[in-house]
Parts: sequence; structure tokens; C-alpha cells
Amino acid sequence: MKRLFLSILAALPILASAQTRSSDNLVQYVHPIIGTQRMGHVFPGATVPFGMVQLSPETDTVGYEQDGHYNPKVYSYCAGYQYDDKTIVGFSHTHFSGTGHSDLGDFLVMPTVGALKLNPGTADKPGSGYRSAFSHANEVSEANYYKVKLDDYNILAEMTTTTRVGFHQYTFPKSDNAHIVLDLMAGIYNYPDKNVWTYVRFINDSTLVGYRSTNGWARTRTLYFALKFSKPFISHGYKKYDKREVYGGFWGQFNRTPNFPEIAGRQIRAYFDFKTTEGEKIKLKMALSPVSMDNALANMQAECPGWDFDKVKAEGQQQWEKELHKIVIDGSQTDKENFYTSMYHAMINPTIYMDVNGEYEGLDKNVHKASGFTNYTTFSLWDTHRALHPLFNIIDPKRNADMVQSMLAHYHQSPEHMLPVWSNSANENWCMSGYHSVSVIADAVVKGNAPFDANMALDACVATADHRDYAGIGYYIDMGYIPDEKSGVSVSSTQEYAYDDWCIAQMAKKLGRQDVYDTFIKRSQNWKNVYDPKSGFMHPRLADGTFRKNFDPFTTNNMGFIEGNAWNYTLYVPHDPKGLIQVMGGNKRFITYVDSLFSYNLPDKYFAETEDITKDGIIGNYVHGNEPSHHVVYLYDWTDKPWKAQEKIRMILPRMYKPTPDGLGGNDDTGQMSAWYIFSSLGFYPVAPGSDQYAIGSPAVNKAVINLDNGKTFTINVKNQGEKNVYVSKILLNGKPLNGWFISHSDIMNGGEMTFVMSSKHK
Amino acid sequence: MKRLFLSILAALPILASAQTRSSDNLVQYVHPIIGTQRMGHVFPGATVPFGMVQLSPETDTVGYEQDGHYNPKVYSYCAGYQYDDKTIVGFSHTHFSGTGHSDLGDFLVMPTVGALKLNPGTADKPGSGYRSAFSHANEVSEANYYKVKLDDYNILAEMTTTTRVGFHQYTFPKSDNAHIVLDLMAGIYNYPDKNVWTYVRFINDSTLVGYRSTNGWARTRTLYFALKFSKPFISHGYKKYDKREVYGGFWGQFNRTPNFPEIAGRQIRAYFDFKTTEGEKIKLKMALSPVSMDNALANMQAECPGWDFDKVKAEGQQQWEKELHKIVIDGSQTDKENFYTSMYHAMINPTIYMDVNGEYEGLDKNVHKASGFTNYTTFSLWDTHRALHPLFNIIDPKRNADMVQSMLAHYHQSPEHMLPVWSNSANENWCMSGYHSVSVIADAVVKGNAPFDANMALDACVATADHRDYAGIGYYIDMGYIPDEKSGVSVSSTQEYAYDDWCIAQMAKKLGRQDVYDTFIKRSQNWKNVYDPKSGFMHPRLADGTFRKNFDPFTTNNMGFIEGNAWNYTLYVPHDPKGLIQVMGGNKRFITYVDSLFSYNLPDKYFAETEDITKDGIIGNYVHGNEPSHHVVYLYDWTDKPWKAQEKIRMILPRMYKPTPDGLGGNDDTGQMSAWYIFSSLGFYPVAPGSDQYAIGSPAVNKAVINLDNGKTFTINVKNQGEKNVYVSKILLNGKPLNGWFISHSDIMNGGEMTFVMSSKHK
Repeated sequence: MKRLFLSILAALPILASAQTRSSDNLVQYVHPIIGTQRMGHVFPGATVPFGMVQLSPETDTVGYEQDGHYNPKVYSYCAGYQYDDKTIVGFSHTHFSGTGHSDLGDFLVMPTVGALKLNPGTADKPGSGYRSAFSHANEVSEANYYKVKLDDYNILAEMTTTTRVGFHQYTFPKSDNAHIVLDLMAGIYNYPDKNVWTYVRFINDSTLVGYRSTNGWARTRTLYFALKFSKPFISHGYKKYDKREVYGGFWGQFNRTPNFPEIAGRQIRAYFDFKTTEGEKIKLKMALSPVSMDNALANMQAECPGWDFDKVKAEGQQQWEKELHKIVIDGSQTDKENFYTSMYHAMINPTIYMDVNGEYEGLDKNVHKASGFTNYTTFSLWDTHRALHPLFNIIDPKRNADMVQSMLAHYHQSPEHMLPVWSNSANENWCMSGYHSVSVIADAVVKGNAPFDANMALDACVATADHRDYAGIGYYIDMGYIPDEKSGVSVSSTQEYAYDDWCIAQMAKKLGRQDVYDTFIKRSQNWKNVYDPKSGFMHPRLADGTFRKNFDPFTTNNMGFIEGNAWNYTLYVPHDPKGLIQVMGGNKRFITYVDSLFSYNLPDKYFAETEDITKDGIIGNYVHGNEPSHHVVYLYDWTDKPWKAQEKIRMILPRMYKPTPDGLGGNDDTGQMSAWYIFSSLGFYPVAPGSDQYAIGSPAVNKAVINLDNGKTFTINVKNQGEKNVYVSKILLNGKPLNGWFISHSDIMNGGEMTFVMSSKHK
Repeated sequence: MKRLFLSILAALPILASAQTRSSDNLVQYVHPIIGTQRMGHVFPGATVPFGMVQLSPETDTVGYEQDGHYNPKVYSYCAGYQYDDKTIVGFSHTHFSGTGHSDLGDFLVMPTVGALKLNPGTADKPGSGYRSAFSHANEVSEANYYKVKLDDYNILAEMTTTTRVGFHQYTFPKSDNAHIVLDLMAGIYNYPDKNVWTYVRFINDSTLVGYRSTNGWARTRTLYFALKFSKPFISHGYKKYDKREVYGGFWGQFNRTPNFPEIAGRQIRAYFDFKTTEGEKIKLKMALSPVSMDNALANMQAECPGWDFDKVKAEGQQQWEKELHKIVIDGSQTDKENFYTSMYHAMINPTIYMDVNGEYEGLDKNVHKASGFTNYTTFSLWDTHRALHPLFNIIDPKRNADMVQSMLAHYHQSPEHMLPVWSNSANENWCMSGYHSVSVIADAVVKGNAPFDANMALDACVATADHRDYAGIGYYIDMGYIPDEKSGVSVSSTQEYAYDDWCIAQMAKKLGRQDVYDTFIKRSQNWKNVYDPKSGFMHPRLADGTFRKNFDPFTTNNMGFIEGNAWNYTLYVPHDPKGLIQVMGGNKRFITYVDSLFSYNLPDKYFAETEDITKDGIIGNYVHGNEPSHHVVYLYDWTDKPWKAQEKIRMILPRMYKPTPDGLGGNDDTGQMSAWYIFSSLGFYPVAPGSDQYAIGSPAVNKAVINLDNGKTFTINVKNQGEKNVYVSKILLNGKPLNGWFISHSDIMNGGEMTFVMSSKHK
């Protein structure tokens, strides 16, 4: 992999600008630590692009609510790590990046010296468990590399990965009493009874395999592992925290907890004992598989057969270089750090969910073999359909098509015969609203990136959109909107369905399926049914056709919208800004409305309402920290004041994205927030995926070269760039002035040059 | 299968004796109900020979001990059915036959009419749950067919099977409110937390698939199913009895218990609603797989694609005919009922544990493909090595070799690198003592039935026997016996290891492995180290070499023996009766000792000691209801009074085996008790499997023809047979007088004729 990549680089012509040379080391600008404080919910650990293993420290494993109720602290630990914490519990192999729901954190490993401790202990009681104090001064977080000193034990912990293998390297002090704990109970949001079953089998004195079944955010999930140590352990043992076991072994013939060759139960912590010399490195590799222990072993053998930590780290970083070089920018150090960390965050999820032999677990709990594609999971589609998948259609179309194929496989395996809503680890959790898979699929089809059976894909979209039992779709089809009485999110769902239906129509049009087009283009206008001209907002509507009397456009509480208030959501008609402007009273009134979003200061009381609306991610009443507003500033392009978009984008970019631990203005949402940054800093944005159109904003870079898979490059030159020169006075596309404020997907994919001329004054 | 079998039958010559014609219907003599009362622990339901599915009614599902403690009532319900019970809870698909430990009872189905009930209710409260009253007057139990009327609902329930499919046929009354309950919580010995996870997926309105993971007698076990109804259900639903679930579905989009296409949880009961006309039959087929839901569906398609209940029943009964015809006897109605029910019980376990595509789950929890053999599970080897596997070596050598291959596969997959002890459903439960796999393997090798790598098999035997950590083997190797301080079963284990070691030696001899022979023939004499000439018994011995002072030869409580007292176990040297007789004081004293076993009446207090010693299975102090004494009467053949064996065998046979529900004198122990009956009623018995020798007893049949797989027949003629003519006055083997009281395996397998001349007087 490494060698191949280097030779490709060597063959590239040296580009004109020194700052955008492909041979630049771009990994240096990636700081996974960005966004680990407060609401970013990203993790600082090691991963390769879209890795199945994402190996990262946990600073706490909150979630133990004995009565099964939600613990609000859990929300902070979606990625397992909070920058302000002072202790590390251990290092686990799976993490969501930037989500607002918690799961994963599988197979937590922690090295210790001294008396064996099997409980994690608590942060406020030093020494109460195996966790250790650490400080950021002794911490390094890079793409595919994480290092930290564990102060309690004087152990240096380093980790790197391949796609399916986590590679740990622990440098111990001299100790006759060194341990490595494998906590099979630990997990992110680890409430009682989450662990369904655990199994471990020892192959020899340095190799074991096993699995863990959990009932979590992924309801029915089993993850298999294979674990190898670089050095045989002297002894091993475990403790079982199960409440009871009736058949606990026969007459104790084999009742030997120490060195037992097989362990099974619900709540297990295992440990491995070593003697270490000063500075001795003990390495361990853990491979994962969604299918079997045998496959986990095969994954390890295929991807990471040796023990050269530095080589594995370097190969993973070369993978990142390759991905990062897809867009080479010129800009300030801060710009580069923000940009390449955004690129990094955009390429963590979805994750590969398939063994090296092509096998994966399907939604139907059968083992499938992926034929002609790589299978992915972790689809947070309510978030990522907006900009992340459109970004992939530009910089990684093959991978995006594989993601679509994974979604179609999901559809075929789905008990409900539906495309994914929020799928993870061969489970559907139905999180959030809409059926936004159809947006991702339509975007790929419309943009000509459909190396799959597009007609079958359209059928899947239609079947999903016609699933009357799902979340009010029946009412939506029959009445043109979801009545307020029938759903807590009746308005936003109606709007989202209307957009999704428009996507289906666009796809049908491309495929010449007129009947489907006719049906869905009509449905796509349903957003009009929830607009109340009297209130001037999208407004909950009752079954009798009247609009709800009790109405507050600022609240997100029980007002018919999901993770957004009426003020923001009213602008959510990405597929028909023209129609929206008309309905809302025309150009002038619309501009005033959008302006007010930024100028109105939301009273404090509204911040406490939900976990997703915090001051971090809000400007006035504009909520950048959540997705429904991501397209909003670009709507000015449909008015006579596009410069308002330009100035606001340049205002949002530095406020919502900073190269610091608290630098993200909200959950990164598996890359959607980062994708917004990438597009917006390049100067355009896909307002309505499913169209081939991008709306122009205001580029923040000095220059950018998009290195396309087809061998072409699309170069963005920015003339007269400057902090105050936020207004676009002229755009040349391949030397010709651009008419209007839109470019098309083919403009990019055909390669060429777009030149922005910037000014401090708008026209 | 059926057609092939019939044509084979047609080709057979009509035999001389009308009573032993192969074309006789022998299934008529099989009464699965025999042994269902009291201690037999067999089940009355439907199965084909060695079927993966064994579909039978549960009359109770005892086991709910909230504190996790053992409920002694559980012991009665090892097979789920007790003849004295008045209600049936439902029909489940897996059962042990004759065991003393409980598990299985998977996927309980119950048809009802009227108000839906999802709890089983209790027997003492009619109408308190879905269970129904029934009476034996309305019950038919045949090989591969079970029928009962469910009085509470006026439903006729019938069932039959193929190897991997259970076929139910329910004749309903007219009802607008008919249901079929699928209780996924039910199970035999179903203590709290036994259910680890349950999953169900609906494919259409008459087909579903799913699985159930349990932590029971098989510690880590998942069984998959596919279920088809002959008629679509109108609606379906479920109730979840889980204590809590944190992520319980998102905003209720799909919070539709009725008709939900997917169910997952720990404690689930599902139901299916129908409208029925008077006398309408609703059929359902459930296929099982140890590997996947896909495989379960494939198993159903391959074995039972249609809906012809009578055809499936007939085909299964033809399979039984084929097996039963392997020994065709002439005898009284009672003899035939006892004999063929014994044949039936001998061919229920071990069970096939492999899908039609050859895949099975291994002990290592990986999916394996059986290459060149059929994989079996349910190996109760402490019981079955004695006579059941030797029986298979005569009547079904290919199958026995497959069982050995299954045991060798187990060895290769075993985390402990050991042959099975008591294995079930890809789990080892370590039940009972010894490593008696080696007896089964040696018996096959010594008898020339080894179409497998016999040298590798010997290595596996040696590895198992040398596993120092297992149940005192280290002490046994180092000291020649297991010290009393180190084990509660030190004496019987020493004896059993000695016998097993002798088996290894015999096998090594046959394979020319002199070093192994030398080691193990020496170890086989270790039984002498626990014989105390002072007490005259095998006697617990301390580490310092002295024998334990506190000693009671009648108790089974903490006296160094397992499921037997010293009086019985002292005779357990099956491989060296000559040596034993010598050690015990010679011919005369030995005879007196064995006589006393039958004449001494065990005081009542000893019966309460353990569940396995009851008056049912005891004659004097001779315990036929448990295995360690099964060879004992045949030991007279090594004395000068073999007639004592003859009279006792003829005394034991009718006392311990009767063609009635209470007809079995103890747990059938997966066929071992029945195999004893079969051998003994034919007139010979394998005292020491691993030798090719059978000791002569006293035949109870008038005539028997053993139809061998090699095309030959071995005919046993009994002249002058009569109830009082229990003594053998002469034996002719192929017309020549037999010298001594032994025949060899090749005498049988070469075909021929053995004639017993009986007398009422002994010589």
C-alpha cells in the first residue's frame, strides 16, 4: 500500500504553487484532539480512513443507571473521551465520531503495574481502580497514532491501527507485577444488562479469541475479536461479575479461574500478568470481525502479521496522506489545521464492516459475502446526506457508490424492507426522521455515480417512501401532511419527506420512470401543507386542517419539529427555495426573515431544552451546531442579496471551527459538520443533494486543488483573499465569467479552474 | 428414502421363521411412552433416529428459582414430560432422552382458542394460562408420531418430524379467536437469566426465522429456527418480559408490538392469530440449525418442503423400520415391546448436529463444515461407552465411526484440547468422571471400525489422559491414585481412569505403538492402589498412603465414589476381572461378594441420599438404575459359576424393563439402559469395550437375526426357551460347541448362527 502510494506521488507533476504541492505532508495538519472538549463528541485515538477499528482512550464509561433510566452525563461521553477529564480508564477499539447517541467502546485494554485492580475506579478517587491519571502535556494525537503517558503506572501507551486491527504498544517500567487488563464489561453507555454474553477462548499463551454480544444502540450485536500479545503472559485470569449461574461447572474438575482456557458469561474482566524490565515494550494486536473469531484471526494475519509498530503507524498515515491529498489547499496554518482535521473527521464514518474475505453480518443476522463492493456501516443519514455523501461523490465516488451498495444490501436484508435510517453494526435504530437514504442514492444517480442497479435502487427508495406504517408516512400520503395529533415531529417530518420525495423524483426523471416521477414530484410539494401564512412559519397542523393554536417558534419542545425550532425549520425546503421564497412573501420578506435568524438572540430558557441546542453552536437564533440549518445561509443565493450568504459564511467558519480542543460548535455528527466546513471553505455547497447544483458561497482558502479520481483536477483560485475580503466580486469558470451563483457537478468533475475575485465590499 | 427402503426390503429373501420376517412392521412394538413415568426421563414425542429435532410435549417447565438455587423438582422434568401430570404446557423441539440433567426444550408451541393467554399458568389452576388439560385416553405415542387432544381448547395436536424439522398439525374447532403461541422464554430447567438473547424476524405472513441463545447445561449455546405456517396468520404480536431496555426504539416510529417484523430481547412470547372453521387443520413446520437462520430455512426446504403430514410421518416411520430391522427377534408381545422400545430409545441420542449443507457449530464457536462424516452431539459418555456404542459397532458401524469423528472434531476444537466428557450443542459440561471417549474410540479401533486416522485418534486419547489439570489426573499419574483429600470422587475416578487407560493400551497395541502401550497398560493397573484388603473394598486413600478411617460401603455420600457406593464400585474393574477376583480373595470369596450384592437389602436411609439411587432401580444393593454396575452380573463368567449370571440376568430383565409408562428402572441415560436390555436379551454383553470380547449371559428372546451392514446375518437360535429355562446348558457357534463363555466381535460380524440350548437347571 505504502509503496504503491509513493510511486503514484512520484509520478505527479510538481504543481505551480509551493503551498499546494501534493508531496506536502498533510497529516501534520490533522489534530484529532480538535472537538474533544464539550460538544464535538469526536475521539482523539487512532484510525485509518473508515476503519473498522477505531482505537481510542476512554476518560470515563458513564452510564451505570441501575434503574435503567437515561443518565444525562452519558451524552458527554458518546465518543468516550472528554478533554477536561484527568484520568484515562483504558483504550477501546470502537467509537462513534461526533454522534449524539452512545454505544460501542468494545474490548477495553488497560496496562497497569502493582497490585492487580479489576475495577475501573472513579476519577475522583485516585488509585481506586485500574484507571490512571494523565496530562495533555504527555499526550500526542495524530491521524492513526495516539500516545499518552499513564502517570499512575509510569507506562507509555501508544496505539495505531490498520482497517481491522488495533495495535497497542506499552512501554513498561521494571516490574514483577505488570498486568494488562481486558475489560469485557466496559463499554460506552454501559448500562446494566447491556452485555448480553461474552466468550473468550485461549489458543496459546499469547493468543486468545472471543466475542461480546450487546444490547445497546445497536440492539442485537455481536463483535468478535482475536488478540495477540508480543510476549507470552506468565499467567492469566478473570473475574466474573454475573449475578448467578446455575450450571457453574461440574464438581469443580475445571474450576480453575487462573489460566482457564475458556471463559463465558455476562460480565467478565480478564487480566494477563507479565514481568517487565525497565523500558520493555509489550505490544498487543486486537483484530475485530462482525462474523467470527476465525475471521478476526484471518483479518489480523492479512493486515497486520508482524510486530513493527512504526511500520503499521506509517502505513496508516500514508493512507491518510492519500485521502487528504484529494484536496490540497493553500491557506493559513489555522485554515490548514481546520481544513485537514475536517477532512480527517469526514473520513472516519461510515466504517468498513466486512472481513478481509468479504464476509459481513447482515441486518437479517445472516452472514453475507459482499460481491463487488466493500460493505459499510454507521450511517447517520439524517446528518450525512446533506454534505458528507455529496463530498464523497466528488473526492471518493467509488467509496460512496460502495456505501450506496451497502445501503441497498441493508434494504434487501431489512425485516421492514426499508433503506437505512440510522444503521450501525447490522442494526437499524430508527434514529431521527425522514428517509434520507433516498437523498444519498438520488445524489449518486443524478451525478452519474451509480455503478449499481439504479432501477432496483429506485424501487428500494419507493418502497421505503411508501412504508405507510413508518413514522406517519400513511397520513403523509393520504393527507399531504402528518397531523399534529399523530406525531411529535409532524412538521419537520412532513418537510423532510417532501425533500426526500423530490430526490426520488429527480432519480426517476434521470432513469426515465415517469410514473414514479409524477407521484413523487407531487409529494415533494407537501411542505406547503404545513406552512401557515398566518403565523408565517411552518406550523403544526391538526387532522381537521386547522393549525395548532398554542405555538412558539423558538422552542424545540413538543412543537412538531425535531432538533430544531420553527424559526429554523421553516427554511428547510432545500429542494425548492424559489417556492419557499414565494410562499413566505417574496424576496424582501424572505431576506428579512433569514437576517432575523442571525440577529435575534434566543432567550436563555430555550438552551436548557435539549442536549443538542447549546450556546456553543448558536449564532443568534441560527443553530449551526445542528443540521437542519446547514443549508440556510446559502438560500440567499436565491434572493437578490447573495453577498449576505458570503459574509455570513465567513462569519460562521471561524466561529464554529477552531483548531482547539473546544473547536467544534456542535456534534461533528459522523463528519457532516466537517463536510460543511470543507465545502464552505472551498466556496460552494450542495444545498439540495439529488440535484447536480452547488450554490456559491465565499471561499476561505487562498487556493485549492481537488485531485479527482478520474485523473483530472479542479482548481479553485482565490484572488484578493483576505480576512475582510469576504465578498465575491467576480467568478471565472475556466476563464469565463460565471453567470449566477451556481456551478454544476460536471463543472467540477470535468476538471478545470474556478477563480474567485474577492473584495471587502459587496456589490 | 422410502422408495429405496421398500425396494431393499423387497429384495430380501423371506426368512424361515414367520416371526422374524424382515417385512414385519416393527414400529408397532415401539411405545415411546414407556419410561415416561417416574425415573425413566424419556419423552413420548416424535423423532426420527438420532434426529436434531425431537418434538415432544412438556407437562411442566419447572426451574424458576429466583435465587438461582437448584430446585429438586427439576430433576423429574429432564425430558419435559411426566406421565402422572394432567396438563400439557406445549410442544417443544429439543429434548434429552433419559438424562439426569436438564436443558433444551427449545421453541415451545401451543395452540389455543379463546382469550389470548401468554403465560403458561400452573397445573393446579385450570385456565390460569395457555396450558391445557389432557388425558392419556386421548394420547397416541408412536415412533415419529405423537397425538393428543387438548381438552381446554378441543384442539387435536399431532406431530411428526424429519431429522431437522418438526411438523405440527393442529385440528381446531370453529373459532374467530384461535391462536398459536410461540413461547421463546420456555425451556426445560428454565431458571432466571437462562435466556441470553432471542431474535425473531418475519419473512412474510406465514414465515419467520429467529434464534435463541441460552446459558444452561450447554453454557454458550445458540439455536436457530425457521418456522412456516400452512396458512397466513391474520395478525401477530408479542410480549416482552425483559426487566428493562434502555434504547427501546426511537420515538415510537415503529413501536408497534402487533405485526412488528422484528423482535429482539431476552424474554419474549409471541403469538399468531387465526380464524378457523370446524375441523380446520393448521400445520406448522419448524426447522432448526446450529449455524444460522438461512441454514434453518435450507434445512426445511431440503427435508420437508411440502405440507403432507401423513407422508412425513410415514417416511420417518420407515426410517425407524429400517433401523429396527437391524435386529429381528422372535419373542412374546412383551418381549417385542420391550426390545423394540429399547432399540428405539437406543437410537435417539447422540443427535445429529449439522445442517444439510454440512455446516455445524464447533466447540470453538466457529462454523465448521463436516468433511466426510455426519457431525453428532449429545454425548453422555460416562453412560454410553459401556454398551450403547458397542451396540452401534454391531448394528450401525458407519454411524458409530461418524460419532467418533465428531468426538475427534470436538478434540480439535476444544479449548482444553480434550476429547468430550459430556458434550452437547457445541459445549462441554464436564459432567461425570473419567475420560470415556477413549473407550468408545478404542472399541471402534480394536473392532476394526476405524475409517478415520486412528493414530491421530490415539494421540487425542493420550493427550486427554495426560491432561494433568483435569479432575485429579496429575495426582493419578504421579501417585497411582487420586488422594481422598483432593477429590470427592477419588476412588471411582481412579478406577475409571484405570479402565480408560487399558482402552488406550489396547488401541496402542492394535496400532503397534509399543511406547504408548507400555505406559498405559501399566496405568491400567492403578485400580489396585485403591483396593484395601483390610476392608475388602475399593476404599478412599489418603495422600500419605493410608486408607480413610471413616468409611461406609453403602453410602454414596462423600465416600470417594460417583453415583454408586463402595459395594457396587468395588466390582468396577471391567478390563481385569481375573485380577480383581484374585485381589478380592479368589473365586469363592468373589462369588460370595457378588451374591451379597443381590441379597443384601439396602437400608432405607441410603435411598434419600441422591437423586439417582431410588428403589425403582435397585435389587438388594445392586443398582441397575445407574451405570457402574451394568457389567457386574457378567463377572460370574470369570468364576466357576456362570449360571449365576444367567439366572440374575433373567431376573433383572423383567424387573427393570416393563412395557408400561413406569417400565424403566432408572434414567435411560441416552440409551445405555436400553442397550443393556438389547444385549442381555440377545444373550451376551460387552463387559469391557475396547476388547473384542462379549461375555455370555442368558438370552430372553426365542430367536434373533442381526442384519449386519456388511450384508451378512448373525442368527441367535434359542432352543427350549421358557420363563424358567434361564440356564444355558449348551452353546453351538456355527454348529460347533462353544468353549467357555465368550464370543468375539468377529464371530458376529462374519455372520453365522449361534444356538443356545436352555434348561431349567444349571450344571
